Amino acid sequence: MNTTPIIIQPIGIVHSPYKLPKDVPIQSKFNTTVQATIEIYPQYAQGLKDLDEFSHAIVLFHFHQSQKETLLSRPYLEDVNHGVFSIRTPHRPNHIGLSIISIQSIQDNIIHFNDVDMIDKTPVIDIKPYISHFDNREQTKSGWVEKHFNKGTI
Amino acid sequence: MNTTPIIIQPIGIVHSPYKLPKDVPIQSKFNTTVQATIEIYPQYAQGLKDLDEFSHAIVLFHFHQSQKETLLSRPYLEDVNHGVFSIRTPHRPNHIGLSIISIQSIQDNIIHFNDVDMIDKTPVIDIKPYISHFDNREQTKSGWVEKHFNKGTI
Repeated sequence: MNTTPIIIQPIGIVHSPYKLPKDVPIQSKFNTTVQATIEIYPQYAQGLKDLDEFSHAIVLFHFHQSQKETLLSRPYLEDVNHGVFSIRTPHRPNHIGLSIISIQSIQDNIIHFNDVDMIDKTPVIDIKPYISHFDNREQTKSGWVEKHFNKGTI
Repeated sequence: MNTTPIIIQPIGIVHSPYKLPKDVPIQSKFNTTVQATIEIYPQYAQGLKDLDEFSHAIVLFHFHQSQKETLLSRPYLEDVNHGVFSIRTPHRPNHIGLSIISIQSIQDNIIHFNDVDMIDKTPVIDIKPYISHFDNREQTKSGWVEKHFNKGTI
């Protein structure tokens, strides 16, 4: 067992119209008109070179307002407990979140984006280009979520 | 600027046939026959409940063998420098990697999976269900990578 802690240094911060966790929609993909920015700290700004040629990026961030760590929890969509690694709750070990953003433009160290599901002042810890050729999966099974597609809940 | 460090505690470890970074293929999606496991540490095992009903999961991990942090770097595919946030190199701020694995089975605290691109003893820091309805993006632009699809390099 290797339990050596890993130290993460934020590379930037989100400026979002959502001020509280309760304001945020379930999934950013369905939330295309809201706009926000990521301010990359100046010492990392050079790393943004060529990202503006991508339409989407994967943002890893810290759920900084969650103080709670659960192993079983209820997702937004239903009143049933699931393992934390089969849901997207913020209240998880290490409190790391993942969003796929739609890049509108990048000016100096500021990324303007749509598809917002992060709250204001969220610390950003990494950004990766979204490459559909690598990141899309077509034939998938989505476990407990699947029945909600069928029911039309989402 | 919020530069408060975030402390991450590994939740598990990868057991992979790849022992060195140079053994690993570029992208796991095209590497469907190799098998590996993730051992989730016992104190987190309960969090795996219901994950076996998903075909795929997103694994966040630590590029523990990288000692280097770059802002501009050459990707595998070409001999041109790009910003680190527009490539997938391990040599990045915070050294966090992302893989989409194909789940074969889960027995107790062990996930058996295909689509392997992590090396042996990689610390795992989070697992999220892959939900194509949320995570697929169809109409995308993949920047500098795009010309390699057109050329048939990948």
